[in-house]
Amino acid sequence: MKDIIPTENLVAQICRAAKSAAPALAGSGTLDRNAALKAMSEGLIARCDFLKEENAKDMEAGKAKGLSAAMLDRLLLTDARIRQMADGIDEVIALPDPIGGIERITRRPNDLLVGQMRIPLGVIGIIYESRPNVTADAAALCVKSGNAVVLRGGSEAIRSNAAIAEILREALGKAGLPEDAVSLIPITDRAAIDAMLAQEESIDLIIPRGGEGLIRSVVEKSRIPVIKHYKGVCHIYVDETADIDQAIPICVNAKAQRPGVCNAMETLLVHENIAHAFLPKVAEAMAAAKVQLRGCPQTIRIVPTASPAAEEDWGMEYLDLILAVRVVSSMDAAIDHIRLYGSLHTEAILTRDHAHAMRFLREVDSSLVLVNASTRFNDGYQLGLGAEIGISTTKIHAFGPMGLEELTTRKFVAFGEGQVRQ
Amino acid sequence: MKDIIPTENLVAQICRAAKSAAPALAGSGTLDRNAALKAMSEGLIARCDFLKEENAKDMEAGKAKGLSAAMLDRLLLTDARIRQMADGIDEVIALPDPIGGIERITRRPNDLLVGQMRIPLGVIGIIYESRPNVTADAAALCVKSGNAVVLRGGSEAIRSNAAIAEILREALGKAGLPEDAVSLIPITDRAAIDAMLAQEESIDLIIPRGGEGLIRSVVEKSRIPVIKHYKGVCHIYVDETADIDQAIPICVNAKAQRPGVCNAMETLLVHENIAHAFLPKVAEAMAAAKVQLRGCPQTIRIVPTASPAAEEDWGMEYLDLILAVRVVSSMDAAIDHIRLYGSLHTEAILTRDHAHAMRFLREVDSSLVLVNASTRFNDGYQLGLGAEIGISTTKIHAFGPMGLEELTTRKFVAFGEGQVRQ
Repeated sequence: MKDIIPTENLVAQICRAAKSAAPALAGSGTLDRNAALKAMSEGLIARCDFLKEENAKDMEAGKAKGLSAAMLDRLLLTDARIRQMADGIDEVIALPDPIGGIERITRRPNDLLVGQMRIPLGVIGIIYESRPNVTADAAALCVKSGNAVVLRGGSEAIRSNAAIAEILREALGKAGLPEDAVSLIPITDRAAIDAMLAQEESIDLIIPRGGEGLIRSVVEKSRIPVIKHYKGVCHIYVDETADIDQAIPICVNAKAQRPGVCNAMETLLVHENIAHAFLPKVAEAMAAAKVQLRGCPQTIRIVPTASPAAEEDWGMEYLDLILAVRVVSSMDAAIDHIRLYGSLHTEAILTRDHAHAMRFLREVDSSLVLVNASTRFNDGYQLGLGAEIGISTTKIHAFGPMGLEELTTRKFVAFGEGQVRQ
Repeated sequence: MKDIIPTENLVAQICRAAKSAAPALAGSGTLDRNAALKAMSEGLIARCDFLKEENAKDMEAGKAKGLSAAMLDRLLLTDARIRQMADGIDEVIALPDPIGGIERITRRPNDLLVGQMRIPLGVIGIIYESRPNVTADAAALCVKSGNAVVLRGGSEAIRSNAAIAEILREALGKAGLPEDAVSLIPITDRAAIDAMLAQEESIDLIIPRGGEGLIRSVVEKSRIPVIKHYKGVCHIYVDETADIDQAIPICVNAKAQRPGVCNAMETLLVHENIAHAFLPKVAEAMAAAKVQLRGCPQTIRIVPTASPAAEEDWGMEYLDLILAVRVVSSMDAAIDHIRLYGSLHTEAILTRDHAHAMRFLREVDSSLVLVNASTRFNDGYQLGLGAEIGISTTKIHAFGPMGLEELTTRKFVAFGEGQVRQ
């Protein structure tokens, strides 16, 4: 118990310092924030050796702890990866400043001019696991959008994260902005997360990035609003009128181009009237891409090489070269399946029928709904937002990829000349 | 303990029924939703006698319980008040449909057309106290924006609320929409609220309307996102360059036109260079409006009739004909005071100086910031949103008055012609 009070105090102190730093950042000009970002990107390159030294300590501790080769690889910082972090910050510099503009100014009947000014949210708390590049990526987006940020990374990367945060804070100081606008919580046990989730007087929004368990526990405990992204169980529905030659490459791209990410297809729904023509061809293409199929009984009658799907295959996020396949009797059945098993992430219809396309767009309730294109497009860069800080699968505040604009809000402003209310 | 399980079950069942009804409402056309609203408005008028009978039972129980005359008045339904509820619904019918449109369609370099479609949030939970008109007002805004709604009103108005909800549900049925899109939880103890706040699988957003205690306890317990409005501690800052003849009526309007509401001024901040010229005049005008002043020492030297303000007067929401007055040495001091004691609700600067106006607009962090106009304009109708469901003083999802658009979100939609990701 001895330990708990200092942790809470330290976390509270860091969060209060971030809150104090937030107005100066929010009030700073575009050029100042871009100068700070430039100093961050240059600082990462200039202190590359320091970063690699600190990272080596994390790697050593990780090996001693018995981390898997895949986890160690995610943890590793190389010259090329440090360069990528710096390039990522340079890309954020090039994006337009999202704050300060006034939108939708209208004149009221009493001549009051009313509009909405884009402003930062204030202080954003990011809770994430392993990869140290998140420290730089997330901080850059927050600073660009005028938000202070409190970062709480995983224990495996603590030295790497601390080294990156030190460089980012120095860069803020060099640009005349408060260093406390970027802070890393140096405590890696759960108590530090709990303490952070209770700082509702200092933190305006929590964004957790990591496994479903982490996100659920954050939602359960937080008194601060949370924007969450649980998982991606993405579906493609192949309509009876689909263009088969177009559908095959879309399905292979959606499943196999990068199977380990949240916008990869996990379940393929096929209209029964096209199943005999389509399934053998898609099965062949998937086999060539080393994808295993798990099918419903109708699928297996047409593609005997597929293994039978169990009930738990529907709604499963494989993140692997495995695809669940189900034959459906209608578009309604496809939409019902998505409603029951989907995760509100990304769904596509492949069709030549205009009315089907429009109805699917309207009725499917996902953060991105596509017609005749791969689910892999659900990504901030691909959709034209620039860098993203995550993909929200809940509808409050942001739904889908969160770019700079989603890190802002709007306050009303009114220009009067003596108006009073009647 | 016996009671708890049935309450939880009943609440869960109502919320699940709302969730099942939501897709049909979300997918319905503008004309259907408007027809349902028209049937609601007509139903309230047609069943006026039934409403008054049920309301009389609440009034009787309220008298037996010893409710104050003011509370009994808020509870009372008269022909005129029922007509007002119906008129309120008719106004919502006249507003444009907020859902289904696609905004900001852009063409990506691969010719994918990407836009954002306005969609309902899903199911909205409203937790409110006393006034029965909220039942009709809130339900109308939710139905118009394609959202199902679960209402949980206070115990004093339970029979009136149940009667209104019955009429609204019948109207949905008449228009061919699911009756479960509007539900009232018929249990008025706290356990029903707790049960509702645990329905995160069914409810997408909670909007509490009531006292600060209710709202804080909802935020603490809810696993569902909450949009909250704690209180309104609104400030006017009279700059050294203010036009005194314009400033006096603005201040009197902000304080006295309707002192019991959240957008009334509670604290007046006056620049020291204008205090001697301005304070005696505003004190005279406030006295004529029966407003008592509580001043800082400098204020009292200039206006000896004011009583001394204690530390707790700064940041106090009087909701009464009382005004705290403080002389400040600069605009910075005024902004600092607002940052320390304000509630992010509404603040105004009165000035002739353009640079001061623009800086105040930029640096003051409230849901509405005005130049040379009364704080009383922070209201959905006054700002041009039409009817409002509340005023948010937190920045996530909505900041300021919440109209129909704030009850929606946007999903990404993409029109492809075979695009795959490279």
